Amino acid sequence: MSDRIAHAGLRARITSAEQAAARIDHGMTVGMSGFTGSGYPKAVPMALAARIEAEHAAGRPMRVKVWTGASTGPELDGALARANGIELRLPYNSDPIARDRINRGEMDYLDMHLSQVAPMAWQGFLGPLDVAVVEVSAIRADGALVPSSSVGNNKTWLDRAEKVILEVNRWQNPALEGMHDIYYGTALPPHRVPIPLVRPDDRIGEAYLRCDPDKIVAIVETDSPDRNAPFSPPDESAKAIAEHLLEFLGHEVTKGRLPASLLPLQSGVGNIANAVLAGLVDGPFHDLTAYTEVIQDGMLDLLDSGRLRMASATAFSLSPEAAARLNAEMGRYRDRMILRPQEISNHPELIRRLGCIAMNGLIEADIYGNVNSTCVMGSRIQNGIGGSGDFARNAYVSIFMTPSTAKSGKISAIVPQAAHVDHIMQDVAVLVTEKGLADLRGLSPKHRARLVIERCAHPSYRDALTDYYERALVGSYGLHAPSLPGEALSWHQRFIDTGTMQPA
Amino acid sequence: MSDRIAHAGLRARITSAEQAAARIDHGMTVGMSGFTGSGYPKAVPMALAARIEAEHAAGRPMRVKVWTGASTGPELDGALARANGIELRLPYNSDPIARDRINRGEMDYLDMHLSQVAPMAWQGFLGPLDVAVVEVSAIRADGALVPSSSVGNNKTWLDRAEKVILEVNRWQNPALEGMHDIYYGTALPPHRVPIPLVRPDDRIGEAYLRCDPDKIVAIVETDSPDRNAPFSPPDESAKAIAEHLLEFLGHEVTKGRLPASLLPLQSGVGNIANAVLAGLVDGPFHDLTAYTEVIQDGMLDLLDSGRLRMASATAFSLSPEAAARLNAEMGRYRDRMILRPQEISNHPELIRRLGCIAMNGLIEADIYGNVNSTCVMGSRIQNGIGGSGDFARNAYVSIFMTPSTAKSGKISAIVPQAAHVDHIMQDVAVLVTEKGLADLRGLSPKHRARLVIERCAHPSYRDALTDYYERALVGSYGLHAPSLPGEALSWHQRFIDTGTMQPA
Repeated sequence: MSDRIAHAGLRARITSAEQAAARIDHGMTVGMSGFTGSGYPKAVPMALAARIEAEHAAGRPMRVKVWTGASTGPELDGALARANGIELRLPYNSDPIARDRINRGEMDYLDMHLSQVAPMAWQGFLGPLDVAVVEVSAIRADGALVPSSSVGNNKTWLDRAEKVILEVNRWQNPALEGMHDIYYGTALPPHRVPIPLVRPDDRIGEAYLRCDPDKIVAIVETDSPDRNAPFSPPDESAKAIAEHLLEFLGHEVTKGRLPASLLPLQSGVGNIANAVLAGLVDGPFHDLTAYTEVIQDGMLDLLDSGRLRMASATAFSLSPEAAARLNAEMGRYRDRMILRPQEISNHPELIRRLGCIAMNGLIEADIYGNVNSTCVMGSRIQNGIGGSGDFARNAYVSIFMTPSTAKSGKISAIVPQAAHVDHIMQDVAVLVTEKGLADLRGLSPKHRARLVIERCAHPSYRDALTDYYERALVGSYGLHAPSLPGEALSWHQRFIDTGTMQPA
Repeated sequence: MSDRIAHAGLRARITSAEQAAARIDHGMTVGMSGFTGSGYPKAVPMALAARIEAEHAAGRPMRVKVWTGASTGPELDGALARANGIELRLPYNSDPIARDRINRGEMDYLDMHLSQVAPMAWQGFLGPLDVAVVEVSAIRADGALVPSSSVGNNKTWLDRAEKVILEVNRWQNPALEGMHDIYYGTALPPHRVPIPLVRPDDRIGEAYLRCDPDKIVAIVETDSPDRNAPFSPPDESAKAIAEHLLEFLGHEVTKGRLPASLLPLQSGVGNIANAVLAGLVDGPFHDLTAYTEVIQDGMLDLLDSGRLRMASATAFSLSPEAAARLNAEMGRYRDRMILRPQEISNHPELIRRLGCIAMNGLIEADIYGNVNSTCVMGSRIQNGIGGSGDFARNAYVSIFMTPSTAKSGKISAIVPQAAHVDHIMQDVAVLVTEKGLADLRGLSPKHRARLVIERCAHPSYRDALTDYYERALVGSYGLHAPSLPGEALSWHQRFIDTGTMQPA
């Protein structure tokens, strides 16, 4: 069973998930691997959740602080949240049970820029890291760790933690070995130096994670798949958004504002992102690259098509079908993919240097193009800001995309004022809905408002937005970015009160 | 008179300000020098304003788009705004006449991150740059330009403009020569490379600005002082803020989270910033450095005290008294100051690498620490975002400072929800008022709210904030960051309606 563990001394530390979980005590901070449902530990968190439930049943308190790369899977966030075992969670979560706990006020959640998690963990104010629980693909004879299907913050957790628990998951493809690029050149100021990456395909580190073997207190063998969400094919709305966006990119190339092979693409996950990537398969662009957080289904297709030369990311985020496809042909894909730590995949220095084209989703945008990516009605967290702030502020072109309505038209994605702001108007260059695209670059707020309402709003909300804006033009305290504070958030209040943003 | 112009061919292009201004036509885009009241052209803008007034009197339209480094002086923004000669202004303004025009809707204003102005000008979507009007200290025999008291975007304006008008200002100290560091290594992607600066005192460029002599259509000689605002000595509130801040910095050193010589300081201008710098003169920290936008009065004192080893900036922002002091002893100061282009002084890559301690002012912060730096009551522009976004997001510690009230207590600087957001809570680590300091690092929204209300709010608003927050804890749609959209901005509406945020 232990053919994945070539280091003799470490083979001796193989144990059960239960015994490993027993190393984690109430109040501890645990750094777990995992990014968008890939490469998270599967056995120890389940055993930990069982232990927490037993402790709670015995009337004893037990909760831990959980740090990860980004979202994980039901065996981690789901199990621990169900057990009410998480005191604080950072930096990104998409688990429905955990989300519900956060929004009921039962669990603390720290929503962080993904590029800043590792440096802030080093900075010290987050407190010590007691235990790291990290999934790897294999352990080499020299003790080097072969990373799994995500890198995330693993390097930092392994370096910072007092004790390390490894899960060696034989489900992970052995051919992952060599795909990763772990950069060990980061430091705290005043010792920081330029990060020597100038192309998305540059390798600047090593293929393995390092860990002091003396810190490894337990190794658990697993054989469990990453549990990613099934692929949902793009609907008409997503296809329309993709079409507007591809037309814009083509226009920018024609104008000489983008190279013919574009610039490194950053793309979120989900329906719309996959539609855009599908559009690129049939589009006029060749020799594309991606410098992004995750490699999703559409990215695999784009690699297959030959249009995408290579993709750099920190994790996979694949449907079960695409994961099977990747695993079956890893050798073919491997040389065209690089997985890096998220402090590198999302580093502002690199995103600005490379000039990424950032494409992110949103919850709502206001008429000036301020974007809310995280909080429904301003207070209910959806997933978190993720890497959108890292990319949007530093991108060559920062694009945000959304259907113009949600909840069968009861919510307008374009509102008079965003109830929560994650991306200020300076960081939102282009806004796209299925209705159209607004190129907001170089426009002052009032020009932005006209264009957003005209191009992006759903017709069923357009008149109400125009009405608000025109009254603001008369009654606003200042006319730089006209607003009426007394009613700017009334659409949200109406939704909360009546279930729809539409007036009665 | 032309001893400042050593290049024979260029001496032949000396002309009057009126003749130079005649090269600027209606509808043109003009890139002017100037950053925080330093190094802006003084004669040509005045002549241009006179010409615009004459055109308007004759019933002819005449307006121009004005790009600068940041704020300028009354001879530029004041004169052109008074003449209603500005169609669009970017990226930062503090002139009261221009501000009034913007807020009356008579003039467009584009509020940009200062680090992004030059790259976006190169990107092309802002349109062509017809004319550059740049103040320099002198022109050397080889045509190299000795920059003046600010660098700002001058390199980019000189490179991008079709025609160039120079003002050679003999008021500027000849000893400025050699102080500047103009980096010519920037490019558009995919040609960007690491910026080779690893210490605030690194010189990575050359001391002069380049300009193709064939583009120089006019040279105007001037002898005019930069018109900076008089120094206002720190009041009790500013001193209290400085005290809280210095205590925090000392605490961080004790905890080992900051080196004993701190990290490069970024400091805004004004009363509070000067109080902080004055506090550092008497504080325990030695061998300090500054990597910032402007060198203000307090920075000179800090250099004099020997506590500040050197300062890197893009401009001076001195009171007339301090400017006279600097000019009298330029030789003494010169080796300890470097002025750089603002795309370098404010570059995210460099701010994050150096790990700056960012200290910026604000208009209001909400209970979660979202900060409004620009728009009074959400709509009336004050000055602009300036470099605060460049620094706050990338700083090692991002600090925002403000008195707890404004307008004799009628406005609370701490509000239930910011009426406009420039800095999201992720980018606001520490909030300071004269009442106290809230270290918000590592805290989830609800913990932030408790601390901001307790430490930073003025007692006359504290109960109302607590009342709002406790009702939000009950009635909010979600409890991640509780809010009541129906009344979140009611304080602003009340101020607009009644002249005070205090309930009747």
